Amino acid sequence: MNVFLVFAHPEPKSFNAALRDRAVDVLRECGHAVVVSDLYEMKFKAVIDHDDFPDPLNPAMLQIPLEQEAAHARGTTAADIAAEQRKLIAADLVIFQFPLWLYGLPAILKGWCERVFSSGFAHETTPSGERRWFENGGLKGRRAMLSLTCAGAETAFQPDGRHGDMDRILWPIHNALRYAGFDVLPPVVSYAVLRGGELGRANALDRLEGRLRGIETDTPIPFHSLDEYDDAHRLKAGIAPRTPGQHRGPGYLSRTPSS
Amino acid sequence: MNVFLVFAHPEPKSFNAALRDRAVDVLRECGHAVVVSDLYEMKFKAVIDHDDFPDPLNPAMLQIPLEQEAAHARGTTAADIAAEQRKLIAADLVIFQFPLWLYGLPAILKGWCERVFSSGFAHETTPSGERRWFENGGLKGRRAMLSLTCAGAETAFQPDGRHGDMDRILWPIHNALRYAGFDVLPPVVSYAVLRGGELGRANALDRLEGRLRGIETDTPIPFHSLDEYDDAHRLKAGIAPRTPGQHRGPGYLSRTPSS
Repeated sequence: MNVFLVFAHPEPKSFNAALRDRAVDVLRECGHAVVVSDLYEMKFKAVIDHDDFPDPLNPAMLQIPLEQEAAHARGTTAADIAAEQRKLIAADLVIFQFPLWLYGLPAILKGWCERVFSSGFAHETTPSGERRWFENGGLKGRRAMLSLTCAGAETAFQPDGRHGDMDRILWPIHNALRYAGFDVLPPVVSYAVLRGGELGRANALDRLEGRLRGIETDTPIPFHSLDEYDDAHRLKAGIAPRTPGQHRGPGYLSRTPSS
Repeated sequence: MNVFLVFAHPEPKSFNAALRDRAVDVLRECGHAVVVSDLYEMKFKAVIDHDDFPDPLNPAMLQIPLEQEAAHARGTTAADIAAEQRKLIAADLVIFQFPLWLYGLPAILKGWCERVFSSGFAHETTPSGERRWFENGGLKGRRAMLSLTCAGAETAFQPDGRHGDMDRILWPIHNALRYAGFDVLPPVVSYAVLRGGELGRANALDRLEGRLRGIETDTPIPFHSLDEYDDAHRLKAGIAPRTPGQHRGPGYLSRTPSS
């Protein structure tokens, strides 16, 4: 497999960097090719703005989807974005390694997604009206997985936990990946990384390694398919909406955390 | 009231800018004082990195919460962050005006939250072990509200909609605001802003105005209180976890969108 690892932490000595290094080592040991984008090291531009479109279709007013689509069609996508898009095209699996900050992606990674998963590349409505999104998105046929750290304990991220259900917290991110066409694998979450001590961190590294060794046969998180929706973008009669974590089975709400 | 409006859109002619302007006009007409941070115009630094801590407690390794707390205690918080924190302290109500991008905050606004809602300021564990978070967070006594635009139709953001339930999409953002101490008011969502035409946009502006005219008596979204959790950070026996949108009542799943 070709694996593309997107890394977002400012500190080279961080535990996130240790997780990245373990992932790269294990994946290469398994015979996969690995490419890494270290967003902080690259000083990746985090913010979409007028500078992304030096030759705009509409100089009077920036409409981002319009300009992204025009740039994609004309081959004038900004060089730093186009380079990341080429890595995505070449990848079978994309791994995002990051710390969960305020229940979301670090800004540099959120901005990477906004700029790289552009309209025209990752999703679009074609001139004939066809929608390229979700399982028909620009990155279909590829798999994506989040690998994240958080300061809180696993108990606090249960459905009845103080920070709320981790599956629910990650749902908008997973849905954004699905929107771009990815099959989304269950995440690897390393909890309580600041308080777990050396043993806790060693266990977290081993858990990530274990997941990566079996990743070729991992089952993606189920999403509704396009044909389950009607023309008003609602589920057809008789189809109940999925909820985050539902795929974990009926014991989900009462599951016991592993740490 | 003192109102602080945080604005995140790169285009001065955008509909988000029109919503911002209407909000400012209405709030001032109602006798409130309004301060605006236009993050793009300010070129607000979106990314936490080593540059935020020029005189670090630990030069060998950046641990962000540690450095944020030390900077806060010593009064050395970066000037651009401290200025925003002063606006928050002075505010009774904070409004965030932004486009929903990939089911989340624009990167520049996510980064503003990461840098400004810092450890030591918005949340912390005191030396005596007291947790300042959620209803005991640094910004307690203040209210916050999201006002956002999205390209999709309201039908697509219902619980059975193609993009998923808007309450669920916004839940991590709302919980981050709650974590910092805010009472969180229900959001104002302007749907289908690109396709709604002039009438749709006029209606959206009027809806925002209507909400703002009644905002002093608005009821916040309910969250679990700190005393509902046990020492393992889980809800005490017999307390069922709240779900996003639950406060809308039992008709929630079958509600008919207004547009």
